[in-house]
Amino acid sequence: MRVLFQYNWQVRDEWFQWCEQLAEVELLRPRTGGVGSILETLFHIVDVEQAWISGLQGKPEYHHRFEEYASLEAVKQLSDRCRPDVERFVTNWSPELEKKKFLEFYYGEVMRHVIAHEIHHIGQLSIWSRELGLKPVTANLIRRGLV
Amino acid sequence: MRVLFQYNWQVRDEWFQWCEQLAEVELLRPRTGGVGSILETLFHIVDVEQAWISGLQGKPEYHHRFEEYASLEAVKQLSDRCRPDVERFVTNWSPELEKKKFLEFYYGEVMRHVIAHEIHHIGQLSIWSRELGLKPVTANLIRRGLV
Repeated sequence: MRVLFQYNWQVRDEWFQWCEQLAEVELLRPRTGGVGSILETLFHIVDVEQAWISGLQGKPEYHHRFEEYASLEAVKQLSDRCRPDVERFVTNWSPELEKKKFLEFYYGEVMRHVIAHEIHHIGQLSIWSRELGLKPVTANLIRRGLV
Repeated sequence: MRVLFQYNWQVRDEWFQWCEQLAEVELLRPRTGGVGSILETLFHIVDVEQAWISGLQGKPEYHHRFEEYASLEAVKQLSDRCRPDVERFVTNWSPELEKKKFLEFYYGEVMRHVIAHEIHHIGQLSIWSRELGLKPVTANLIRRGLV
């Protein structure tokens, strides 16, 4: 579980770096598919992760509003701010939690949903990157020293 | 590990179904990003999965050639044909394999690489789907009865 979350965080941070080569107008430009723009996709990934992991910790569900984070720096800061709490939960994950119920879901199902959610949206960014004529961040999980 | 592979297979089969609404020329049309066309992306997912899992089983690496599978039916059949062997390996997976070495990689790393590889490419398909004006297959892992 931990490896796939760490993979996602590493890849996400590389996308934040990748974004630095683009003007904010490009990052915010509406695009076809996904949640609409490069920056809103990254924001959405961060927001969905924190919301589910908060939920699993018994905290009330809270969603950030993109309007309040509509710059690269703000989304990066939100990501950095949310990560320690998620990281603590992931680090303390144990197999007994797999079948614990959260609403109508199992904890194990929610964790994998969060993992797949980010990888899926990152795949979308890779297409937009090529449409912009830019090399996307590598999606390879090997050669990252994660295991 | 098993859950994420089963998620991928379920989603993949739904994309095969999704493809049925398109003419073969659309499925084969070169697109920006990824490996180039909808059908070649699905082929690539199948081929990469079988190649890595064969490798982990000590079999020689073998890659299929897309030219020999350039129709929806042929890619579906290849997927169905490769799956039992992969499924057997995934079902028999045990945590002691995590740190076993395959070339310069760990088994645990390769397994997660294969998982992330498919989810990433499926994310790409979802963009092309919207560009075609079509609703993509849902990427949600929840509500699939997988855990």
